Amino acid sequence: MDYVYGPGKNHLFVPGPVNIPEPVIRAMNRNNEDYRSPAIPAMTRTLLEDVKKIFKTTTGTPFLIPTTGTGAWESALTNTLSPGDRIVSFLIGQFSLLWIDQQQRLKFIVDVVESEWGQGANLDILAEKLAADHAHTIKAICIVHNETATGVTNNLATVRKLLDHYRHPALLLVDGVSSICALDFRMDEWGVDVALTGSQKALSLPTGIGIVCASPKALEASKRAKSVRVFFDWNDYLKFYKMGTYWPYTPSIQLLYGLRTALDLIFEEGLDNVIARHSRLGTATRLAVEAWGLKNCTQKEEWHSDTVTAVLVPPYIDSAEIVKRAWKRYNLSLGLGLNKVAGKVFRIGHLGNLNELQLLGCLAGVEMILKDVGYPVKLGSGVAAACAYLQNNIPMIPSRV
Amino acid sequence: MDYVYGPGKNHLFVPGPVNIPEPVIRAMNRNNEDYRSPAIPAMTRTLLEDVKKIFKTTTGTPFLIPTTGTGAWESALTNTLSPGDRIVSFLIGQFSLLWIDQQQRLKFIVDVVESEWGQGANLDILAEKLAADHAHTIKAICIVHNETATGVTNNLATVRKLLDHYRHPALLLVDGVSSICALDFRMDEWGVDVALTGSQKALSLPTGIGIVCASPKALEASKRAKSVRVFFDWNDYLKFYKMGTYWPYTPSIQLLYGLRTALDLIFEEGLDNVIARHSRLGTATRLAVEAWGLKNCTQKEEWHSDTVTAVLVPPYIDSAEIVKRAWKRYNLSLGLGLNKVAGKVFRIGHLGNLNELQLLGCLAGVEMILKDVGYPVKLGSGVAAACAYLQNNIPMIPSRV
Amino acid sequence: MDYVYGPGKNHLFVPGPVNIPEPVIRAMNRNNEDYRSPAIPAMTRTLLEDVKKIFKTTTGTPFLIPTTGTGAWESALTNTLSPGDRIVSFLIGQFSLLWIDQQQRLKFIVDVVESEWGQGANLDILAEKLAADHAHTIKAICIVHNETATGVTNNLATVRKLLDHYRHPALLLVDGVSSICALDFRMDEWGVDVALTGSQKALSLPTGIGIVCASPKALEASKRAKSVRVFFDWNDYLKFYKMGTYWPYTPSIQLLYGLRTALDLIFEEGLDNVIARHSRLGTATRLAVEAWGLKNCTQKEEWHSDTVTAVLVPPYIDSAEIVKRAWKRYNLSLGLGLNKVAGKVFRIGHLGNLNELQLLGCLAGVEMILKDVGYPVKLGSGVAAACAYLQNNIPMIPSRV
Amino acid sequence: MDYVYGPGKNHLFVPGPVNIPEPVIRAMNRNNEDYRSPAIPAMTRTLLEDVKKIFKTTTGTPFLIPTTGTGAWESALTNTLSPGDRIVSFLIGQFSLLWIDQQQRLKFIVDVVESEWGQGANLDILAEKLAADHAHTIKAICIVHNETATGVTNNLATVRKLLDHYRHPALLLVDGVSSICALDFRMDEWGVDVALTGSQKALSLPTGIGIVCASPKALEASKRAKSVRVFFDWNDYLKFYKMGTYWPYTPSIQLLYGLRTALDLIFEEGLDNVIARHSRLGTATRLAVEAWGLKNCTQKEEWHSDTVTAVLVPPYIDSAEIVKRAWKRYNLSLGLGLNKVAGKVFRIGHLGNLNELQLLGCLAGVEMILKDVGYPVKLGSGVAAACAYLQNNIPMIPSRV
Repeated sequence: MDYVYGPGKNHLFVPGPVNIPEPVIRAMNRNNEDYRSPAIPAMTRTLLEDVKKIFKTTTGTPFLIPTTGTGAWESALTNTLSPGDRIVSFLIGQFSLLWIDQQQRLKFIVDVVESEWGQGANLDILAEKLAADHAHTIKAICIVHNETATGVTNNLATVRKLLDHYRHPALLLVDGVSSICALDFRMDEWGVDVALTGSQKALSLPTGIGIVCASPKALEASKRAKSVRVFFDWNDYLKFYKMGTYWPYTPSIQLLYGLRTALDLIFEEGLDNVIARHSRLGTATRLAVEAWGLKNCTQKEEWHSDTVTAVLVPPYIDSAEIVKRAWKRYNLSLGLGLNKVAGKVFRIGHLGNLNELQLLGCLAGVEMILKDVGYPVKLGSGVAAACAYLQNNIPMIPSRV
Repeated sequence: MDYVYGPGKNHLFVPGPVNIPEPVIRAMNRNNEDYRSPAIPAMTRTLLEDVKKIFKTTTGTPFLIPTTGTGAWESALTNTLSPGDRIVSFLIGQFSLLWIDQQQRLKFIVDVVESEWGQGANLDILAEKLAADHAHTIKAICIVHNETATGVTNNLATVRKLLDHYRHPALLLVDGVSSICALDFRMDEWGVDVALTGSQKALSLPTGIGIVCASPKALEASKRAKSVRVFFDWNDYLKFYKMGTYWPYTPSIQLLYGLRTALDLIFEEGLDNVIARHSRLGTATRLAVEAWGLKNCTQKEEWHSDTVTAVLVPPYIDSAEIVKRAWKRYNLSLGLGLNKVAGKVFRIGHLGNLNELQLLGCLAGVEMILKDVGYPVKLGSGVAAACAYLQNNIPMIPSRV
Repeated sequence: MDYVYGPGKNHLFVPGPVNIPEPVIRAMNRNNEDYRSPAIPAMTRTLLEDVKKIFKTTTGTPFLIPTTGTGAWESALTNTLSPGDRIVSFLIGQFSLLWIDQQQRLKFIVDVVESEWGQGANLDILAEKLAADHAHTIKAICIVHNETATGVTNNLATVRKLLDHYRHPALLLVDGVSSICALDFRMDEWGVDVALTGSQKALSLPTGIGIVCASPKALEASKRAKSVRVFFDWNDYLKFYKMGTYWPYTPSIQLLYGLRTALDLIFEEGLDNVIARHSRLGTATRLAVEAWGLKNCTQKEEWHSDTVTAVLVPPYIDSAEIVKRAWKRYNLSLGLGLNKVAGKVFRIGHLGNLNELQLLGCLAGVEMILKDVGYPVKLGSGVAAACAYLQNNIPMIPSRV
Repeated sequence: MDYVYGPGKNHLFVPGPVNIPEPVIRAMNRNNEDYRSPAIPAMTRTLLEDVKKIFKTTTGTPFLIPTTGTGAWESALTNTLSPGDRIVSFLIGQFSLLWIDQQQRLKFIVDVVESEWGQGANLDILAEKLAADHAHTIKAICIVHNETATGVTNNLATVRKLLDHYRHPALLLVDGVSSICALDFRMDEWGVDVALTGSQKALSLPTGIGIVCASPKALEASKRAKSVRVFFDWNDYLKFYKMGTYWPYTPSIQLLYGLRTALDLIFEEGLDNVIARHSRLGTATRLAVEAWGLKNCTQKEEWHSDTVTAVLVPPYIDSAEIVKRAWKRYNLSLGLGLNKVAGKVFRIGHLGNLNELQLLGCLAGVEMILKDVGYPVKLGSGVAAACAYLQNNIPMIPSRV
């Protein structure tokens, strides 16, 4: 099954699924267990407590759902809203597009606020909508914190400020799939009502757990929400939480142990250090892109993403060719441009359990590929720019000092 | 995290999640990969082709959904039915009960046909209903092939015969969670329209893939089904099947490689040999139960399950105590009695990648536990009965002859 | 490479290499590391300290040599003796025979004290030799604590008493390959000068570390020993111990982490509990053999081994056929009869990380095989006898109470 | 045990133990097995056949000894020579020094031919010695193919030519620890009599197998060699080879499966492609060193090693500081300068299962470290030089074209 074997490590720089640290791979290397024995609930209790920390919430209620990000979206929506509810949603790239598609298919009335791909959510329009909505017909604001397709990070603090300013009771639902546990995210402080991520992103696990966290207000809303749901119904979890057995249906034993270890590693490094590391990797990548003379798909600095960089290529180059060549010649996995930006951007994911020298190997590879496809890059230029920054900013590894 | 460590192997005899064979654990012991590289679709193609074999179908369309059995149920129902549709469903134990609960919450009108727990589906009543339903108001028959809570296997061939006899067009939806790939199951021959199982059952993988297989008639029905669905929508898969990329959202790389190996092992042993092995293990277990002087929860031989045996304990014994003691003293994991049979039965799962000597170790353990809790068992009696049968029936391991 | 695949677990009951517990397999599931970084010496320090506990010594100096038991033997001999030295050595089975062969090839003058296979070391003759040796020409007594070929455990306390009684300064060199960390072994109390074992035995690791422990007297002897040696020279280790880097040549990173975990598991269970568990498993096995009407190769109870049982078969049965059939039909690995007892005995190893239900599965398997090869065993009889004993003697698992 | 955890991958660039490819880690992730079952000899047979290919020999006899490189040395010497034999040995760095120390302690008379560290073996002196040795008192020439301490590769073809020229019958014993399976090595063509390597080097396995290959002439010599040996005695292996069981003592099951996979990967890539890859990595590293304005410890191009580069640092820098900082700040493992070159060189290992982007990450790291310690490197310069070469020379990955 490794018929596509190439020597050495695969350099995995897609923005998910990301590199799994060795201790996590080890923790998951195990047989199944009876999830009804006392061991699994005992561990689950610690997971539910600790997972709240990556959301920066003390009041939220987390759900570890055996699903993907798409399922986590569905869980967030169907537990808080009823068919016909009006919601505001921002279309700024492929993943916000897919979420909006889901919202519409789930029968909500969606006010789609579209921006050019490469721009953040248009919050001026949100302000207008909130100002006009005296009757509070808007039931929820749905926003992707970090649009993985374009490398755009939205400003959630501002969204909260607007809601507060207009004293609007709409729920704030946030897709934090490529942000939570990597970017600065503050569920309680920003009054986020439902936040969600997937295990294969910043947590650096395999795909398989959709992690959804609900505020008390969201839980309250779930009692009235009329969307039909069973598998994604929070209520089934809450019943088992009360019983202390936690699982309405069979969890993946391996992912539970993996999550336990992933959280341990994150707390050992320190969540804020994890976020600072992503900031370093993001900055270094952008400096390299600039040194190559290429443009970032993200149009303004305020939207720059520290977990993924979408790089615009000149019109005479097909970005898909770059991704293909990366894999075929350099054992490097880069992200494709999707939908509107297909062929126009390639993406460097710098998300998850990753360090600076791994990124520099990737950047050196990208330079060679750019040359391969006919772009007149100065070899070494991007690495030099990244190194100049990193050499001043990488901290010592605390456990080794 | 192994704070419940006990020396030696854990003897895992719950009817799922079951023991994972070492080659499968090895295959899953890996980093993440880019699922958009050519490697994953190439492997997926083989999985979709090969997984049909365990359903014994050539015309079905399989879906590998990142979910559990509960999600697979939801996928089967929402893709083929519309809210308000009338369906017939058999309540014979905890898992059929849960499925019926789901059916009702998904807004179908359910004719619940209840049997005493320990009996199979009452097909006489089905016959009556079909006979009476000249208007074809019944849209689907939902039946659990093997009720895991009571160890009862229903006769699907008879269900098909009744449908044919009455020329009734109702869809036949089958929960094969604890049967497919372990019991005789014939999707095409029995005209099953949707069949489903979970990865952690006979396939002997971790939890995480709900495997759903749809007949052409079911696919046809999905075009008209009005149940709201996104995550579980077959159509999203079919779109990606056409494109040859297969995945509408991120699959678990590890489970794909695991499934590839699991199927390889099953085909190496031979599917019919796998089924014969389960028959041996089931027969041996029942002979032991008989030798102990205990009753099988399953009331008639025709319903005996070859994947799980629910053992009735005398009224003066709490079966939960048996399960607790198994784990605390013998490192043995048995299945609890659930709901109506809580305290009254314990369950021995003999499902998945398991051989005879493993089962005999379990049976010896059960004998000691029975003695522990005050049941006057003759030690060795169950093992003797099982061995007498097995010694005449175990085949040579083909690869070692 | 798994072309000899059979379903379910392999039942590994050879007296080494033995079953590796899952946490140890996990710990070894890792990439290489630089053994000169600070991490490896820091871990090595704990290993050297902790490994002394399984020898029950506080004054001994341990060496973790990248070799097998045969190499550990060579290390024990060449570091303490000079060519031409007279030693006394007991021939009681295949492994003592091989050690004597090594002793002779290393140019020592060996007084071979032979016993019938199935008997222990003849300590009367040792007494005579010690009594007669006023000139102290005997430089060492070499004795196998537990002869793995016949399941015979020698009485080391008596050897020490004899040496003390005759005030004889001979070194006491002990092969503890199939005893240390499973049988009662007391290096300091019994005045053992060199004791040794291998990682693949009671420690339940892969093969690869020969663990040798030297008393202060043995270290003193090593300064004068003239046997030519480099790879096995303790002095090279001692130099690196002083420097705090520990390794004169590259260790196996994986085995170091594995050993760390193996020791952790042993200490969590409690060394004396580990020994008691082996005693239970040995007793249960012997009760089964008796119930089958077969004879133990070990001729007297005082020599019974709690780590391996050699079972004599009737003359009309070839014991090799039993071993072959175990593997070919039952996925059970038993030990062959070696050399003088080839064809006459088969061996059940009950050594290492193993629990009672595993053993009972094996015993049930042996019963069926005995029947297969024409021995009129009463099926269930051995398991019944073992269970009757075990049910009264198995303790609760402390971590689960 | 991962108390020295740092985020991301450890960048392992010591010249052994080297990075293990994931498929090999997977293959070794397994329980023990009975090595006397038919499965292990069947696999061993393929290993012995295939391992000859990495020596480029058809006439040699390989031995897979459970030991390290030091043990492999001892095996090569003691099986072919007798105490008092005169041998010629070249001292050109730490590893040749250690081998000579072993040769002397094993009681051979060693003509030590010393070169300055950084130079290759002085073959002029060899010529003189051979020319003068009409009596053929020289029994063996011992030479390290690649001196890992200084990054010097000796010219074995010339050694053979000299032996042939003077019609000298001395055995040619070669330490190929850091060369075989990475550098061009031709046992048969160059008339090497004993060649050896260790599993943790180019084969990219854990430490634990010393692989020794003997020519027919060496096997002949072993019949007359009087060096005392047991554990390392080839004859014990040859006896078991004849019996078809192969193992005189317990092998590591895990390493056998690992070796099988390691060889499979090497043959899939193609041995000559593996060698070409090492040549690319070596060249790229040297170009980077040059671009940094630093000197290679290796004094002439003809001796340049493609598996390790020893980099001289300016006198005002302590090279140990570079290595320490690499580990403490960048999660990068570099090789220390040893003995005479301690403090003066640091070493970049580019050996084993490694690809270009991994190396470039390392080189970028070294640049930052050089700056850290006060060397005025131009950041990006080394990477640029390496990339300029690599971009023209990396082939497509054959399985992905």
